[in-house]
Amino acid sequence: MESKSNYKEEEPEATMWSQKAWALLSTVRSQSPLIQCITNFVSMDLMANTLLSAGASPAMLHTLEELTDFTPQVHALCVNVGTLSTGWLPAMKLAAELAHKSGKPWVLDPVAAGASGFRLKACLELVELKPTVIRGNGSEIIALAKASVEPTKGVDSSHKSTDAIESAKSLAQASGAIVAVSGAVDIVTDGNRVVGAHNGVAMMTKITATGCSVTALIAAFVSVDQSHVLEATASALSVFGIAGEMGMKMANGPASLRMHLIDSLYGIDEACVLSHAKITSLS
Amino acid sequence: MESKSNYKEEEPEATMWSQKAWALLSTVRSQSPLIQCITNFVSMDLMANTLLSAGASPAMLHTLEELTDFTPQVHALCVNVGTLSTGWLPAMKLAAELAHKSGKPWVLDPVAAGASGFRLKACLELVELKPTVIRGNGSEIIALAKASVEPTKGVDSSHKSTDAIESAKSLAQASGAIVAVSGAVDIVTDGNRVVGAHNGVAMMTKITATGCSVTALIAAFVSVDQSHVLEATASALSVFGIAGEMGMKMANGPASLRMHLIDSLYGIDEACVLSHAKITSLS
Amino acid sequence: MESKSNYKEEEPEATMWSQKAWALLSTVRSQSPLIQCITNFVSMDLMANTLLSAGASPAMLHTLEELTDFTPQVHALCVNVGTLSTGWLPAMKLAAELAHKSGKPWVLDPVAAGASGFRLKACLELVELKPTVIRGNGSEIIALAKASVEPTKGVDSSHKSTDAIESAKSLAQASGAIVAVSGAVDIVTDGNRVVGAHNGVAMMTKITATGCSVTALIAAFVSVDQSHVLEATASALSVFGIAGEMGMKMANGPASLRMHLIDSLYGIDEACVLSHAKITSLS
Repeated sequence: MESKSNYKEEEPEATMWSQKAWALLSTVRSQSPLIQCITNFVSMDLMANTLLSAGASPAMLHTLEELTDFTPQVHALCVNVGTLSTGWLPAMKLAAELAHKSGKPWVLDPVAAGASGFRLKACLELVELKPTVIRGNGSEIIALAKASVEPTKGVDSSHKSTDAIESAKSLAQASGAIVAVSGAVDIVTDGNRVVGAHNGVAMMTKITATGCSVTALIAAFVSVDQSHVLEATASALSVFGIAGEMGMKMANGPASLRMHLIDSLYGIDEACVLSHAKITSLS
Repeated sequence: MESKSNYKEEEPEATMWSQKAWALLSTVRSQSPLIQCITNFVSMDLMANTLLSAGASPAMLHTLEELTDFTPQVHALCVNVGTLSTGWLPAMKLAAELAHKSGKPWVLDPVAAGASGFRLKACLELVELKPTVIRGNGSEIIALAKASVEPTKGVDSSHKSTDAIESAKSLAQASGAIVAVSGAVDIVTDGNRVVGAHNGVAMMTKITATGCSVTALIAAFVSVDQSHVLEATASALSVFGIAGEMGMKMANGPASLRMHLIDSLYGIDEACVLSHAKITSLS
Repeated sequence: MESKSNYKEEEPEATMWSQKAWALLSTVRSQSPLIQCITNFVSMDLMANTLLSAGASPAMLHTLEELTDFTPQVHALCVNVGTLSTGWLPAMKLAAELAHKSGKPWVLDPVAAGASGFRLKACLELVELKPTVIRGNGSEIIALAKASVEPTKGVDSSHKSTDAIESAKSLAQASGAIVAVSGAVDIVTDGNRVVGAHNGVAMMTKITATGCSVTALIAAFVSVDQSHVLEATASALSVFGIAGEMGMKMANGPASLRMHLIDSLYGIDEACVLSHAKITSLS
């Protein structure tokens, strides 16, 4: 990590990753996949706008009665347990089952998984339903991997993403999902390979629902390349991080960063992705 | 449509429409009508801010137990089925009935009407409760008029507004409502007359809940002139579109457009409305 | 009030207040208290972002099943009845009881308390559960103090805050809570002392959920100094108002004010708080 030319000239792998990230974003823009989101109330606005800015088509539908008609038509499903309740959990499960049966990818965001016994149990039940990707912060992935309720900081992480690598690998192996851990470095693993996405800025943690929103973006990227889920996951994390970096140049605080991030995600071009994407193998 | 002086010098009708749009916005600002919104979770923030910026007073109340006390006091009701559920539907119906009985206008936004059998049935039941205005996109109005579940793009339209004119007319005739179809040209009809509002910019479709929000604005405009519902509907669509046009001059993407649109709606003045409103008879 | 040097040189009390406000904001930033919010759907986004910008950690959890595990771990609880429903009320009550039993402060925002019999009864039941602070607008505090349903303007106030001073004092005496009334001057009372916070700008009333958000900020401030609840409440109101004043210098309307307010709350420094805070004894 000493050389700043790391990602440009010396690593053909880095170039390959950058090209992959750009190719996937381009495909999302041209295909405009329909992404169903069953998500928490806090994140709905930013998540829908993130998907729209990336070129996807969001649909926030969560009612049990219409899932059988609707979910098989979508290109991917995003399930986020942020404001979990007994009323919503059956719909999350049925939608996950319908997506799985229809061969559509679905992505799980286990928000605050270790915050209560009720929440942990719900998350573990959802993991049983074969998510394609699980994305959380360090504390959430550790809670899921250990299946234990932990002293909590609520939705914020008390662990660095790099502290959760072993937990992420074991969760990936046990669940069959690609597991992503957000943090200063975003970690992505299939249980064997470990990849790091090094984009983004610290102030993004001061904007609510950025984690939720990148999970939905992962769903959009995976929906257009189901045979390369790990690559699509790392690419979505990197692209969202680049949008944050670009936005940060114009931001005066978290609220203006939020605006510029979405504008940047909408406007980001090939040159920018190729020069800024920083995805590396960590193992 | 060849001449760009169409709307300024040659058409007294255009001048009349512009003056009507300004008169209604002024009245909303001075009377600050109380608009009850029973709407989806995604749109609540932008809808409330749209109403506030236009000078109206929003109230997001949806609980069955308080409708009998509350709804008869409001100046108009907006019902939006975006995140429809079995729990909320009875409140939508009761509020619609109470508004109708109290002689207060109510506006229906049949989001993704054709996305599931459950949703279509709910929308058709709401149409039976005598909405004053129904506003949707092309696909939604066609699904309602045909009473059929359709292959869906979720909440986004797969039809142009102008493809839905006949559906809009027949829905207006069957329901007694003024029907509005949003699109590049916004269509408004009472089943006989057809009017087009030509304001707005394409990027507004990249911001979630702009359609929902203009429906609430229609409720505000109609509440201050119940004897001219078609005119009030076209005026609200035009004024919201003008705010988008003004916002677009300062925007770098969808998120900054969202901000500038609301700022513009707050600040828009008579000269701007008179020079920018483009409402024409289409039949 | 004639002299504009009132708050700088002549009043040691004013200096003391400003220093208190800064000390509390600094402590929130350094301790990052975990604030549970059971709040309305409209306000969740802005409330979470307000807490994050001030340095606190928001957690929007409302499900009955996880409160016993979660609520005793938080540093304060904020309960807001904006989109009240029969489904959510039991969780609001249980969380309030758990907070009270755990010795954690909890703050009540009785949105539109007088808008329906159902809502008024729910608010009065919550008042029985010993809130540490109650913050509302003039109409809400009057409705609570008189325990009566009133002709309503919905969530907006039809009374000035200064018209509600006697109601606030009697509510504080009856409930044991510190009572705050938002308005052009924010009033804070323990039933005997009455303090006024004179910060903020009128356009903040044109942004939805600013009142809800300052209530959550009060919870954060009180959580770091439970022995000075009145001072913490007045300080939070003043700091939020200062952020509004700073934001207003850059704003072109309500939406840009919202953004700049949050950015300003994030960036506000000691010099700014000391020079701008205007808190005075009113009795």
